[in-house]
Amino acid sequence: MDVISIGETMVLFTPEAPGQLRYSRNYSSKIAGAETNTLIGLSKLGHRTGWIGQVGADEFGAFILSTVRGEGVDTSQVLKNEKAPTGVFFKELLNEDNVRIQYYRKGSAASFIAPDQVSEDYLAKAQYLYLTGITPALSESCKEAVFYAIEAAKRLGKTIVFDPNIRHKLWGDEEARKTLLAIVEKVDIMLPGVAEGEFLFGTKNVPKMAEHLHKRGVKTVVMKLGKKGAYLSTEFEQKFIPGFKVSKVVDPVGAGDGFSAGFLSGLLDGLSLEESVKRACAVGAMVITVSGDIEGLPDRERLDDFMRASTTAERVSR
Amino acid sequence: MDVISIGETMVLFTPEAPGQLRYSRNYSSKIAGAETNTLIGLSKLGHRTGWIGQVGADEFGAFILSTVRGEGVDTSQVLKNEKAPTGVFFKELLNEDNVRIQYYRKGSAASFIAPDQVSEDYLAKAQYLYLTGITPALSESCKEAVFYAIEAAKRLGKTIVFDPNIRHKLWGDEEARKTLLAIVEKVDIMLPGVAEGEFLFGTKNVPKMAEHLHKRGVKTVVMKLGKKGAYLSTEFEQKFIPGFKVSKVVDPVGAGDGFSAGFLSGLLDGLSLEESVKRACAVGAMVITVSGDIEGLPDRERLDDFMRASTTAERVSR
Amino acid sequence: MDVISIGETMVLFTPEAPGQLRYSRNYSSKIAGAETNTLIGLSKLGHRTGWIGQVGADEFGAFILSTVRGEGVDTSQVLKNEKAPTGVFFKELLNEDNVRIQYYRKGSAASFIAPDQVSEDYLAKAQYLYLTGITPALSESCKEAVFYAIEAAKRLGKTIVFDPNIRHKLWGDEEARKTLLAIVEKVDIMLPGVAEGEFLFGTKNVPKMAEHLHKRGVKTVVMKLGKKGAYLSTEFEQKFIPGFKVSKVVDPVGAGDGFSAGFLSGLLDGLSLEESVKRACAVGAMVITVSGDIEGLPDRERLDDFMRASTTAERVSR
Amino acid sequence: MDVISIGETMVLFTPEAPGQLRYSRNYSSKIAGAETNTLIGLSKLGHRTGWIGQVGADEFGAFILSTVRGEGVDTSQVLKNEKAPTGVFFKELLNEDNVRIQYYRKGSAASFIAPDQVSEDYLAKAQYLYLTGITPALSESCKEAVFYAIEAAKRLGKTIVFDPNIRHKLWGDEEARKTLLAIVEKVDIMLPGVAEGEFLFGTKNVPKMAEHLHKRGVKTVVMKLGKKGAYLSTEFEQKFIPGFKVSKVVDPVGAGDGFSAGFLSGLLDGLSLEESVKRACAVGAMVITVSGDIEGLPDRERLDDFMRASTTAERVSR
Amino acid sequence: MDVISIGETMVLFTPEAPGQLRYSRNYSSKIAGAETNTLIGLSKLGHRTGWIGQVGADEFGAFILSTVRGEGVDTSQVLKNEKAPTGVFFKELLNEDNVRIQYYRKGSAASFIAPDQVSEDYLAKAQYLYLTGITPALSESCKEAVFYAIEAAKRLGKTIVFDPNIRHKLWGDEEARKTLLAIVEKVDIMLPGVAEGEFLFGTKNVPKMAEHLHKRGVKTVVMKLGKKGAYLSTEFEQKFIPGFKVSKVVDPVGAGDGFSAGFLSGLLDGLSLEESVKRACAVGAMVITVSGDIEGLPDRERLDDFMRASTTAERVSR
Amino acid sequence: MDVISIGETMVLFTPEAPGQLRYSRNYSSKIAGAETNTLIGLSKLGHRTGWIGQVGADEFGAFILSTVRGEGVDTSQVLKNEKAPTGVFFKELLNEDNVRIQYYRKGSAASFIAPDQVSEDYLAKAQYLYLTGITPALSESCKEAVFYAIEAAKRLGKTIVFDPNIRHKLWGDEEARKTLLAIVEKVDIMLPGVAEGEFLFGTKNVPKMAEHLHKRGVKTVVMKLGKKGAYLSTEFEQKFIPGFKVSKVVDPVGAGDGFSAGFLSGLLDGLSLEESVKRACAVGAMVITVSGDIEGLPDRERLDDFMRASTTAERVSR
Repeated sequence: MDVISIGETMVLFTPEAPGQLRYSRNYSSKIAGAETNTLIGLSKLGHRTGWIGQVGADEFGAFILSTVRGEGVDTSQVLKNEKAPTGVFFKELLNEDNVRIQYYRKGSAASFIAPDQVSEDYLAKAQYLYLTGITPALSESCKEAVFYAIEAAKRLGKTIVFDPNIRHKLWGDEEARKTLLAIVEKVDIMLPGVAEGEFLFGTKNVPKMAEHLHKRGVKTVVMKLGKKGAYLSTEFEQKFIPGFKVSKVVDPVGAGDGFSAGFLSGLLDGLSLEESVKRACAVGAMVITVSGDIEGLPDRERLDDFMRASTTAERVSR
Repeated sequence: MDVISIGETMVLFTPEAPGQLRYSRNYSSKIAGAETNTLIGLSKLGHRTGWIGQVGADEFGAFILSTVRGEGVDTSQVLKNEKAPTGVFFKELLNEDNVRIQYYRKGSAASFIAPDQVSEDYLAKAQYLYLTGITPALSESCKEAVFYAIEAAKRLGKTIVFDPNIRHKLWGDEEARKTLLAIVEKVDIMLPGVAEGEFLFGTKNVPKMAEHLHKRGVKTVVMKLGKKGAYLSTEFEQKFIPGFKVSKVVDPVGAGDGFSAGFLSGLLDGLSLEESVKRACAVGAMVITVSGDIEGLPDRERLDDFMRASTTAERVSR
Repeated sequence: MDVISIGETMVLFTPEAPGQLRYSRNYSSKIAGAETNTLIGLSKLGHRTGWIGQVGADEFGAFILSTVRGEGVDTSQVLKNEKAPTGVFFKELLNEDNVRIQYYRKGSAASFIAPDQVSEDYLAKAQYLYLTGITPALSESCKEAVFYAIEAAKRLGKTIVFDPNIRHKLWGDEEARKTLLAIVEKVDIMLPGVAEGEFLFGTKNVPKMAEHLHKRGVKTVVMKLGKKGAYLSTEFEQKFIPGFKVSKVVDPVGAGDGFSAGFLSGLLDGLSLEESVKRACAVGAMVITVSGDIEGLPDRERLDDFMRASTTAERVSR
Repeated sequence: MDVISIGETMVLFTPEAPGQLRYSRNYSSKIAGAETNTLIGLSKLGHRTGWIGQVGADEFGAFILSTVRGEGVDTSQVLKNEKAPTGVFFKELLNEDNVRIQYYRKGSAASFIAPDQVSEDYLAKAQYLYLTGITPALSESCKEAVFYAIEAAKRLGKTIVFDPNIRHKLWGDEEARKTLLAIVEKVDIMLPGVAEGEFLFGTKNVPKMAEHLHKRGVKTVVMKLGKKGAYLSTEFEQKFIPGFKVSKVVDPVGAGDGFSAGFLSGLLDGLSLEESVKRACAVGAMVITVSGDIEGLPDRERLDDFMRASTTAERVSR
Repeated sequence: MDVISIGETMVLFTPEAPGQLRYSRNYSSKIAGAETNTLIGLSKLGHRTGWIGQVGADEFGAFILSTVRGEGVDTSQVLKNEKAPTGVFFKELLNEDNVRIQYYRKGSAASFIAPDQVSEDYLAKAQYLYLTGITPALSESCKEAVFYAIEAAKRLGKTIVFDPNIRHKLWGDEEARKTLLAIVEKVDIMLPGVAEGEFLFGTKNVPKMAEHLHKRGVKTVVMKLGKKGAYLSTEFEQKFIPGFKVSKVVDPVGAGDGFSAGFLSGLLDGLSLEESVKRACAVGAMVITVSGDIEGLPDRERLDDFMRASTTAERVSR
Repeated sequence: MDVISIGETMVLFTPEAPGQLRYSRNYSSKIAGAETNTLIGLSKLGHRTGWIGQVGADEFGAFILSTVRGEGVDTSQVLKNEKAPTGVFFKELLNEDNVRIQYYRKGSAASFIAPDQVSEDYLAKAQYLYLTGITPALSESCKEAVFYAIEAAKRLGKTIVFDPNIRHKLWGDEEARKTLLAIVEKVDIMLPGVAEGEFLFGTKNVPKMAEHLHKRGVKTVVMKLGKKGAYLSTEFEQKFIPGFKVSKVVDPVGAGDGFSAGFLSGLLDGLSLEESVKRACAVGAMVITVSGDIEGLPDRERLDDFMRASTTAERVSR
């Protein structure tokens, strides 16, 4: 096992066409979950991954399980909850930079994830524990499970990678800040966005955010800067790494999860931090050219094509 | 105003094709609510109706409001709840007699309907108060609203019509039975199905069910017997009234609501009870030949056509 | 050229699903025209056919022309009318025996068909002139064109085959009856339905209808009896010919046009009248199992399969 | 009642994908009418509006009525015409700046709007009478109805707002110019486009067009300048007001109607003329980012969001 | 591992609606393979299964792999062939009993399955080896792989179950008969259809077919009789077992594979042969009520529901 | 007859939305063939064209035949092959400049085109023989047919126009280069792309490529330069001709075939070479704004509109 993660995956309903949801009569369903997005991204690139989660003992749970398992992620640690439904949500896309979400996830199956579901034997098999700031926001037991997993991973000497991924709809600012900072104290690598850095430390200055994180013990910081690329900061190096150009943004959601997958994939392949960040930017860019969170995640061949060809022109192969 | 009702209307998502929901990737959305189904059915037949309800201050609420209002139902008494979402549900249709429902309605906007939303002035404008057994199952405040409306209607001398419409997924049998029987004591006309009669009185004998209801004070009982038609029972007459044949059942849901609409429409038009039941059967039959709860509800012209032509043959008009 | 016909072909819009048109948001378009249906049916069976018609100089006209030509019908005699649009219509299908049509064909391009468009040289190439009772109902000039063609065909010694195909929405009963009877006087073969026979002669008795037609000079009468088959009547024989069973009627429209195609195809292949009527019944039956007027018309292979297999069982060929 | 308007609303069929209509096999239907677009725009922003119109007593009429009523517009003054059909039209969209329309509206129900349908009592309830140059082009009786309404509104002291909205396919240039100029003499506020100003007065100079209009008695002129915004001209001020940027134009039709809705909404809210024009530009811009005429019309919340955020960046809210 | 199988799985393209394929413009894709159908059926019922196969190193191969793996089948023994494409085929469905198939499977990846891909270690883990008569028809190396697997399984003492599943489009009758009879000699359980029995032994008499098979060494014979059920024959018992009624056949393909899944599932659960055949009939019946080969395969809950309820009435659960 | 061509036309399946094919569940089908694309382009512009080809005696062949014939191309020389299927292929469109093709064309019907199918009488009717470099790559007999047609056309004094259209998936570079250069020796006009010029002569210099071609006997060379336009080179003139701007590229495939159609159309209309190249650029530009190879090909009216309006602004005609 290369990477293990914990979190909720839901069924996402997207209207057939952009516009106010009230006029939509047709929706398509996909699975969506920050953690499984990243695990699937890694899996498509050939890495071995495992997911700790819960789904309802209903058809939506079956849909999620077969999709995640089908992409090659180990689902042996996923429970089917007989008493709580699988969470669902709806996405309204007015245009590429105006997205609204309506959740039906309160009391969902995944909110019942708890420490006793986290097996230390299972964690022992992995190299990395990947966490996001969504899971601790789902419920008290979820928060406890995250901290339990962190402690266990530290005991086992695993590297912990953390994407704060703040969802303001899920908890109050106060609680979010307090909890996320408590996690920050314990992780090795952190992959925040700029708005998240500002939320946590009140500064818009990217290098200063990184310093704040270093002070709290994070060894490696990779700030996601959207189209501009990323900022890498460690004890030894601080540098801006440019992003990849994309002709048309189809669906902005999922870029961060792809970024994480690309970054971890680089580390697993033994690339340098800088090369890993470059790969992270590439995967993030590829994800947003396609509708859906996992549909744009590349396999090896496509990733190589994209990174090679992002300077060259036409690629029609007949 | 001819008929007023109180209840929840949700957005219903139906897969494009029959089958296990896990394989569905495309859904269509419609509104669905037992009470608005009946009100819309009445409205399409030319009667004046009003709905007391709540929707979320979200796009699904806007969808419901514009649809119900568009069909001609007065929505001046519908509140937009800023704090709770519009309820949604999903329908799995394996085949015409195997339907499963997955609800996301717990804590929905409509569960906040309460007595103070029921305006006596508004009730005063109507001839009939139409109620179902779904609303008291939604929440404590909903139950109180139903009993409050019943008392007010009685004070105002309105006729109360009740369809028990038992939803076992919403409450325990004990509580359901107790509450429904308390309502039975106060209503004038009741429109139960056979399974509901059995649930309430423990007998499968249709005339006996009616007697039970008469004993508790219900003056007019119309038992719905599905394809077989209905059983009408009052102090003065007891008879079976045959149903209408339907070539193909497309969607069995909504038949009961259409039945209620047809029955009330007959009463409003001054038909005899028997003629009203016949019309009830006709509307119920028309509803199930079309996908969706309200899409099959007829206007006057179609209802007349159907009742006239249910014996004659082809009706291609060019 | 084997068969030539004159008439209007329109674009037909059909809703995605059965039900009241007011709820339909998606439509599919097809071409539809009684005469081209028959010509295409003949063409798919390998016969050479030609169409005299008009379409608008618009995209719908282009759609019709490429479809009819694509099916192998000669369109050299079809005019593009710069001043009048292609006719369109909408079909509401509540269920298999309840169809309503809404036409937008008044003043359409085809209503400008006139005698000067009918080339005697062109008619001279054909064996049969096939006419329906729709064309004379479209406009005064259309009616004149039909009578002009009849006279020319008679001069040239061609056999004239007539399907009355009465459209009550297009003209008054009086005018329809008068015109159709005037045509009856001049044709060799007639293919009426029972309702049409009743409309023309006031009797429901099938053999009597045939007698009426014989009296007015029609040598061969084939009455279409729907599922029951057909009744063949000439000077020498009168008999009922049984129809073919069909598991499920998907779209009842177009059966008559397919019947005509099958019948003419039999004559062209030198079959006996009885065998030709059998083929007519087979093609008519095949048409109604598929949505659309021309989509169910068979090619040789399928027709042979159907006629052979209508007694045998499963036909899954892998 | 805040605003009343008179005009035709039709059913619009749009192909599933851009391209020559001859290749389209799937269409979606929406309602479309310049006047109801504006009324719905106002209604979605919370204003009270009323529509004087006619639809056919057919399913398309039912579709229009339920949609317009559903959006909150009063339809008590809309007649169902038993003798004439609801008008329909088709839109071919080759790309964002190449649109062709094919109408089937000649002799449509709305062409029977006549003075006797315009109730002075109804007009008396409104603050504004909103008119377009389409309605007088539909038929002689429609023209009379427009002039009748203008006279009545003037008598009642209502403000008349006029969008010339010239449709060259509906009438000759001569007649159009003469009629529109006759209307110009009587209105208070006018909202022309540049091409329309040029058509009426033969100059391409925007301020000169405004002067022409002022000379003929129009007190307030707002010239629509597309992406560039608008030009406001009164006795007291003349100024260019910049427009709003839009990332991608999806459907250019309907912008003008949204502009009118935004402008009238500003006036009704007591904004200054300049602020009202700004709102007009905002609504116009929002409309063209979404397919359909009414689907992009914003409610309050979205309008505020858009006007606030048109300088700020990403707006994904989770 | 409970059951292992060897074979080809392809991508199947089905038109959106029944009818001649030439008129179809829209297709949906699914995976289809007799052996994986059965394995997935078993997997959905909770059994552990493994697939030995090959797919192309292309997107269709990825689709098949993720679907089969997603359903819980072990795919560790599936190779991605870099040199040959994944096979595809198209299904024309004229109506429920008239299906045509167009294959593009010649030289497909799966035709390169060969003995060296069959691991004895892998077979050793299973209880049953399940084979069909399709695989030996794909290529010489496929045939060798099948015989190799049979020998290995016999050595390992595994039970071999065989469904002849004759595809006349894949090989000549002579070769088919010879090869299948050679296989018959070596298998323990056989699940033929009636037409297959007739093809192999030239008799239409079901008990006689079974005798032929017993004579050649097959211990247990289960003849599939379609709607009528099945005939079970062993040394100790011979009996007809009635089938389950189905309201509407949607897609007749896949019934046999579901039958096999149900039968093997019964054996694995320790049911009697007769009870296993009953379960086989139930699964087969459930499959044909849904479009697609695997979409109708039930999980435990649904299977129990179906077998319990096949006598009782309505099953709408709300 | 104006232009005759020889080649393969297949059915192309395109997923509903861009993205990795493994996630596509819905495909639409169209016909696609370089040579018929050009012939249809000419036909839509009013020229008379003929196609020499083969399709399978299957539904896909029927689809191709009716489409090509429907567009007005003569198909009298197209054979239905009873033994080989119609070729099909799938297009994966990740984004506008990343297209992958998966072919199922090996051993297809068209690969059986052979010299004896090429009728000298038929060629004698045409002015131009149009050839591409695809046909000789399909099979040995196809290559022979191409050379046979070239010799015959030369004998008959016809002008031969050649688009090398290299498909690297169909043959080795060596064989491709050798064969194409052998064809170059015999043609009058050549329409290569830059990559093709480089492949054949090893230079990226456009004028040098043209010189190479002139040296080998090609009188007129038109190099396609994509968005930049084209380079025209003859004995008398060498010049760059600018292309047309296109707002959005929807589908880059088919541009070259449209270019050929525009160019030949210009020659047939008696335009100068330069004007013909301009028209070629215009048609090529129009094709890529629409999905599909033939759907964007213009008729006269649209071509004139486009060439006239490519400088002017909005073109909404109502």
